[in-house]
Amino acid sequence: MTPLAADLRMRLWTLDAHVPDAAVLVDRGLLRDTLYAAAAAGRASVLGEEFCVFGNGAVTGVLVLAQSHLSLHTWPELSLANVDLLTYGDMPGEDVLRVVERGIGADRSTVACMARAVA
Amino acid sequence: MTPLAADLRMRLWTLDAHVPDAAVLVDRGLLRDTLYAAAAAGRASVLGEEFCVFGNGAVTGVLVLAQSHLSLHTWPELSLANVDLLTYGDMPGEDVLRVVERGIGADRSTVACMARAVA
Repeated sequence: MTPLAADLRMRLWTLDAHVPDAAVLVDRGLLRDTLYAAAAAGRASVLGEEFCVFGNGAVTGVLVLAQSHLSLHTWPELSLANVDLLTYGDMPGEDVLRVVERGIGADRSTVACMARAVA
Repeated sequence: MTPLAADLRMRLWTLDAHVPDAAVLVDRGLLRDTLYAAAAAGRASVLGEEFCVFGNGAVTGVLVLAQSHLSLHTWPELSLANVDLLTYGDMPGEDVLRVVERGIGADRSTVACMARAVA
């Protein structure tokens, strides 16, 4: 049977989070641990990673998961983090983002979810 | 002056594309070249990359750009690719995605753009 794209249930989850303590946003170790904990909460296999630290301490981190990804970009000067998660099937995206929110101690955040498909 | 999050003009661009020839979706070299060409079209600096090839030939590729990212996941069995691009400021996201569309020879696609912000 030919698989259908709809069967994949592709979802893109986004989290934009404000933190009261911007120090966490330049803590590469804490951020990396947080992303791994979040991936574990989604029962996702981590296949690879790429982290970059910028001149002002801002961190970009991407975990490549089994055919999806979890990314984080921090803006310490704005006390802000942007997190993106692409999911397929049953991965509980909201739980994954919740772990990131808690890990960075967000006090205000916006979560969105959009279905992905070809028209 | 304290920078404002609104000044960042954070945007998430998504492309879901169907291709008539699924062979391109297992061609790691072509896909990598396409992502680099797309990043160049957005005048984005590539700071790192992570590519994985799956058992069925499907490819995941992520380019870490200066404080943003461009990711690609292919589904050869569905003739489908999912592309995500986070942009800040003036990066012409639509141009970047257009290069990916052309590079993989998409014949049908859906592009979406969402503003990112903390409520």
